[in-house]
Amino acid sequence: MATVKLIEYAEASPEVRAVYDDIMATRKVDRVNNFWKALASHPPTLRRTWDTLKSVMAPGALDPLTKEMIYLAVSATNGCNYCIASHTASARGRGMTEAMLGELMAVVGMANETNSLADGYQIEVDEMFRSPV
Amino acid sequence: MATVKLIEYAEASPEVRAVYDDIMATRKVDRVNNFWKALASHPPTLRRTWDTLKSVMAPGALDPLTKEMIYLAVSATNGCNYCIASHTASARGRGMTEAMLGELMAVVGMANETNSLADGYQIEVDEMFRSPV
Amino acid sequence: MATVKLIEYAEASPEVRAVYDDIMATRKVDRVNNFWKALASHPPTLRRTWDTLKSVMAPGALDPLTKEMIYLAVSATNGCNYCIASHTASARGRGMTEAMLGELMAVVGMANETNSLADGYQIEVDEMFRSPV
Amino acid sequence: MATVKLIEYAEASPEVRAVYDDIMATRKVDRVNNFWKALASHPPTLRRTWDTLKSVMAPGALDPLTKEMIYLAVSATNGCNYCIASHTASARGRGMTEAMLGELMAVVGMANETNSLADGYQIEVDEMFRSPV
Amino acid sequence: MATVKLIEYAEASPEVRAVYDDIMATRKVDRVNNFWKALASHPPTLRRTWDTLKSVMAPGALDPLTKEMIYLAVSATNGCNYCIASHTASARGRGMTEAMLGELMAVVGMANETNSLADGYQIEVDEMFRSPV
Amino acid sequence: MATVKLIEYAEASPEVRAVYDDIMATRKVDRVNNFWKALASHPPTLRRTWDTLKSVMAPGALDPLTKEMIYLAVSATNGCNYCIASHTASARGRGMTEAMLGELMAVVGMANETNSLADGYQIEVDEMFRSPV
Repeated sequence: MATVKLIEYAEASPEVRAVYDDIMATRKVDRVNNFWKALASHPPTLRRTWDTLKSVMAPGALDPLTKEMIYLAVSATNGCNYCIASHTASARGRGMTEAMLGELMAVVGMANETNSLADGYQIEVDEMFRSPV
Repeated sequence: MATVKLIEYAEASPEVRAVYDDIMATRKVDRVNNFWKALASHPPTLRRTWDTLKSVMAPGALDPLTKEMIYLAVSATNGCNYCIASHTASARGRGMTEAMLGELMAVVGMANETNSLADGYQIEVDEMFRSPV
Repeated sequence: MATVKLIEYAEASPEVRAVYDDIMATRKVDRVNNFWKALASHPPTLRRTWDTLKSVMAPGALDPLTKEMIYLAVSATNGCNYCIASHTASARGRGMTEAMLGELMAVVGMANETNSLADGYQIEVDEMFRSPV
Repeated sequence: MATVKLIEYAEASPEVRAVYDDIMATRKVDRVNNFWKALASHPPTLRRTWDTLKSVMAPGALDPLTKEMIYLAVSATNGCNYCIASHTASARGRGMTEAMLGELMAVVGMANETNSLADGYQIEVDEMFRSPV
Repeated sequence: MATVKLIEYAEASPEVRAVYDDIMATRKVDRVNNFWKALASHPPTLRRTWDTLKSVMAPGALDPLTKEMIYLAVSATNGCNYCIASHTASARGRGMTEAMLGELMAVVGMANETNSLADGYQIEVDEMFRSPV
Repeated sequence: MATVKLIEYAEASPEVRAVYDDIMATRKVDRVNNFWKALASHPPTLRRTWDTLKSVMAPGALDPLTKEMIYLAVSATNGCNYCIASHTASARGRGMTEAMLGELMAVVGMANETNSLADGYQIEVDEMFRSPV
């Protein structure tokens, strides 16, 4: 149960509907998922989050599938159930195969392991890794 | 300062040297970085971690650069300094441009933002995201 | 399902009942919530946690509502379901409006985003921020 | 050492300078801190992050000091050094006293303690905390 | 619902069955738990994870119960539901009493509290704690 | 640099000195480490934290060394530098050998790896792990 009321399209203000319409048009779907209905409880956050997400996840130097997999890697690390579920679905929708998911999770697991080892032993950063660009 | 003694090649046991040799040969470098020198304080962990890392990061359904960027995304999320420094260097070595790094960080930042929003509002997973394969 | 047995008032030891009584009297409620029933499986932890919580959350230089919102911010960042649910309820009970919750979550989301960016780029702390009091 | 080059005003593009100018004018300071100089390595992220931050941290249902303290609570939870340093300074600049900081940290510490207890015992959310608005 | 199909023994490949057989023989149980059935969606990760786990959790300088409690401490800190549930069960199976679990959680809670305080105040490491071995 | 002034014994109030005296007597040392000097900026937090720590870390169903290793496991997972440094020292002071530290870190690394895998695949808790005591 969400801690805020989910706002359905029928009851949404024009401001919220405009965002919902843009989400559905951009994604070519006929309804918005619960994340947006919850954010609609605070319209400025709904608007800003959607605008940023749309821009950040658009194709650029990285293709959209790579971006979705990076998103999923962060979500698995944070243990955010909703985010894992929705971004696993998005990544599959953009072409992630089961083999790719398996390798992605293997890297995520390994990164979390070595992160705790590097922190746990307080290893000093090598000179060769320190120089900025 | 690491909390364990870093083991240099000259003082390493044959068991540790064998791992160091494999690291240097695989990566075509002439010395190993501090992470391995710290893990060498517990040779079984050194051996297992290197064997797993070598295998997990090898090309497969995902290319090595994508794997490095996923690794970096996890490390930035965990705030592991050593890991961020070394994997930013590795990703650059495999072709990550500044534009790619910029987009990667934008996705990582956005994912951490929306993860806390989804958790914070305790949003229920939509039916469409729930079905397993 | 909790991993420990929840201790109900009827079956509680006098030591545990004394804490339950204080919780109910302090909060003006007629039963204790599951968190305390689980902690009662280890009475010293129940006692210490309640004593500390009661003292830490009392009015002081910060008012109780601000404290509840800070608590909720930490809980959303950690993704602790129980904590988010209970402290969203407490904060509402102390006067948090939907607009305040919306702004709170917007700040929490933004802080998590910029935290990962600052960590991810390993940005050095500016001189002006370094000086202690 | 940041993993990206910090962009100074003198070498910044007009696009980046416009953001720097807005940061300095809004905050009434005569230079920007390192966070923005690092983000300037990816101008779209610089622009979006500043626009969102400016809007999210503006006075609203919550006053700016409360927002800064929430930001600091998240940063302490994540262990983000840069963020802790800069937002402790910002919160002090907005009126946080040492007594307020002491209570803030006491709440943050307590929230992290009870978060791990609630997660560790996997305590089920009470019915009374479940109902949405 | 897992985001990947759980692989049952009957439908598993010989490669996966060999791991399942080893898990059941090592643990003296007659079926494998869901974690392994999910990892079986990517057989190399299943194989490596089981081999490492078996080796890491075997008796050594630390006894298996101590190792299980350390595992549980990490899982409670990360808020990983599956891991908390399964390792609470394993630790109980190896002799953890309710009093031991109570003290374990008290230490975990306290460690998470003081971790956020030490990070939040950015306390410099004392000279006496800095020296490596 | 800590974000608060470290309070030295010479300048401490009687209330703070009483805690410092108890820390030095309990630990048989002749000065207190920086953590306590920072907490002394908010005397009630200093008092409560020390009282709780002293009680939680005392021998009980778990011996002090096991408790120190659990503390260190949490600190490595959180990446808290100060906490890792001080509790590695404490654990060594209580008898942790290099072999024990090596196994501890191997378990911590493995737990962080499998935690992200279990979360990342959203694996459902098996029936056998669900039952409360």
